[in-house]
Amino acid sequence: MRAEILAVGTELLLGDIINGNAAWLGQRFAEVGVDVARSVVVGDDLDAITDAVDAASKRADAVVITGGLGPTRDDLTRDALARAAGVPLRRDPAIEQRIRDRYSALGAPVRGLALQQADLPVGGTLLPNDRGTAPGLRIELGETAVYALPGVPDEMTAMFLAAVLPDLLERAGRAAAIVTRVLHTAAVWESVVGERLRDLDAELTARGNPRLSYLAAPAQVRVRITAAASSREEADALIEPVEIRARQLLGSTVYGVDGEELDRVVHRLLAERGATVAVAESLTGGLLGAALTNMPGSSATFRGGVTAYASELKSASLGVPAELLADRGAVDPSVAVAMAAGARDRLGATYGLGVTGVAGPDPSEGHSAGTVHVGLAGPSGQTLVHSPVFAGHPRARIRELTVVHALDVLRRHLLGLAPFHGWEDPG
Amino acid sequence: MRAEILAVGTELLLGDIINGNAAWLGQRFAEVGVDVARSVVVGDDLDAITDAVDAASKRADAVVITGGLGPTRDDLTRDALARAAGVPLRRDPAIEQRIRDRYSALGAPVRGLALQQADLPVGGTLLPNDRGTAPGLRIELGETAVYALPGVPDEMTAMFLAAVLPDLLERAGRAAAIVTRVLHTAAVWESVVGERLRDLDAELTARGNPRLSYLAAPAQVRVRITAAASSREEADALIEPVEIRARQLLGSTVYGVDGEELDRVVHRLLAERGATVAVAESLTGGLLGAALTNMPGSSATFRGGVTAYASELKSASLGVPAELLADRGAVDPSVAVAMAAGARDRLGATYGLGVTGVAGPDPSEGHSAGTVHVGLAGPSGQTLVHSPVFAGHPRARIRELTVVHALDVLRRHLLGLAPFHGWEDPG
Repeated sequence: MRAEILAVGTELLLGDIINGNAAWLGQRFAEVGVDVARSVVVGDDLDAITDAVDAASKRADAVVITGGLGPTRDDLTRDALARAAGVPLRRDPAIEQRIRDRYSALGAPVRGLALQQADLPVGGTLLPNDRGTAPGLRIELGETAVYALPGVPDEMTAMFLAAVLPDLLERAGRAAAIVTRVLHTAAVWESVVGERLRDLDAELTARGNPRLSYLAAPAQVRVRITAAASSREEADALIEPVEIRARQLLGSTVYGVDGEELDRVVHRLLAERGATVAVAESLTGGLLGAALTNMPGSSATFRGGVTAYASELKSASLGVPAELLADRGAVDPSVAVAMAAGARDRLGATYGLGVTGVAGPDPSEGHSAGTVHVGLAGPSGQTLVHSPVFAGHPRARIRELTVVHALDVLRRHLLGLAPFHGWEDPG
Repeated sequence: MRAEILAVGTELLLGDIINGNAAWLGQRFAEVGVDVARSVVVGDDLDAITDAVDAASKRADAVVITGGLGPTRDDLTRDALARAAGVPLRRDPAIEQRIRDRYSALGAPVRGLALQQADLPVGGTLLPNDRGTAPGLRIELGETAVYALPGVPDEMTAMFLAAVLPDLLERAGRAAAIVTRVLHTAAVWESVVGERLRDLDAELTARGNPRLSYLAAPAQVRVRITAAASSREEADALIEPVEIRARQLLGSTVYGVDGEELDRVVHRLLAERGATVAVAESLTGGLLGAALTNMPGSSATFRGGVTAYASELKSASLGVPAELLADRGAVDPSVAVAMAAGARDRLGATYGLGVTGVAGPDPSEGHSAGTVHVGLAGPSGQTLVHSPVFAGHPRARIRELTVVHALDVLRRHLLGLAPFHGWEDPG
């Protein structure tokens, strides 16, 4: 089966947005062995979209379109599909009602352009969108199945996995058992992961199945194991020994599998111990607390946080000794620990995490950007500090890296492990 | 002048690499007023590359190709260009010598495939590459100038700026200037923006120049005005009346232009008034403080924040009256205001912002997910509350929307404006 990807949006051509949707779709297609022959971007222009849809549908067995389904005048994918199919648009009363309900639930009058999201080319079928108002649609152009999805990544990915991929595999008449398992690592360098897995990867590449792929996020490398087989059980059986070997090679840097995010793991470890955590932040400005409240129900193990951005607040709000600040400055391991202890005491938590450092781009108090100290304070006065160095990264990245390392310091402490600096041998 | 971008590389189709080159080129073209009509990605396949080059050269005045110029067997861009031009490849002795010198300098034997980088379609001219071994090349296909550059970003960008861009501008005979202006709005629904601008948009679409396009982020719709003219001054003159009308139609929901982000605008308004802000958060868990510390130097106007996730901390850490919490619960307008006042007093700021609500997905204290209250406390006891409803959004989106609305409440208050709910007519 040959697929093509078509992204619609002038903002993509202008470079305002990078076409991450196409890369994500390419990865998913590769996992299931569908060959993506071409990926095209056109602007919000009816002729250009229609022409691109027409050409792609003549070359490929399946075409996935992202974007152009919203409620503004330049959302033209529906019209282009109708033109390419030579059919009129029909307004779907059910969707129209859903949109009207949504608006009235918000106590707002419904706007005319919002309703164009209920228009559907005759012969097209709906792809429900649980995360937004714009539904996707599927239509046959000759022998080719064309799927139109919203450009908003979280809506697009959810709809592709729920509705498009199963339909594609069924069309391909494929034993649709593709199983993937993702191992999540924290605070370990991508090059170390690649090094540790090199032989296993080479062996699997020679065999062709299962396959390894890598996805690097800041301080979190994800290793995806993908197996194809005629049944889910067979695929699982193929994955299991590979997962065991990969876990042995990556050791304690593996914090979770598949949907397990680092914050969830930390909450679970805390809950198992009947413990809670509070945070004290400076350079992260609240990002650490935000990460610890990503998941529903986090209030069971997260107490709260204090962001002492103005330096004197580290004393006033967290009880960091003023003389310590005067003596060592705000960017110091002992200050990180004192912040952690302050958060623990003042917010009534079992553990306190404190982060201080320099997000940059400029140095502060003589410390260069990327200087970071993570302090941890636990029951019966136990404390530790972790001081990674994130030199050479932009401000936003330094803040992200700090959050991941802080969460991992707590995770490893709860497991009885010392902090990990990134390049050591995963024990 | 119409340009097209063609990226060559199977790794792009597989999603191993995101096509950042295309976004970078799109930005450069937009800056100099060259309209990019289409951006295509094909794999390392001779027929696919040749076909894509041929089609692009028939549509566009200029085609920029990235990738496929290296020393491996799957680097096929040179061959594809020769086929599209109907000419043979000729080995350039000067480049061949440079490559041989380079290898001997490294003390390495010259691999046969390395020399293919010295092959050039007859009629093509070289584009020197100071940063790598693979030179680029330029060839005319009919009326169209085709430029082939390496896929390595720093080589590609250097060669584009040094050799391709000047050549393009010269061909365009003093390139037509395209100027874009982006208006940023906050807290107004995309459908309302579309509605308000519908007539102006229709009028401009009929005229064809300037054009409007829309880019939607959570609670922030960006309206881009793009004008093409023979000079930058003429383009500016075309944009000005459109910008004035768009600003009139969108009113106070427009917070900034071009690079101005909402947090920067808030910091600027605070600085102009010699004021500072502190935040008290619950459902956002620190995201509001994080937004207010995105930009360097934000410590001048941001004091810090308290995240009182555990309900009783709203009393302990922020001084929200316990009887108020007992009486009204944590999700209440009066609690948001009390949190704001507490943050203002305890963190020593001119203004306090307090947010409480239900991020979901489940209801809390009988309030449904998406219930949000933003409180503001200012000097001399002034307070106000804004209670938007974000029903039907996922948890993460509700948190994002809350942050944008909270920042906008402060922005509007500093400008003497009441909070905006999203669907009203922008005053």
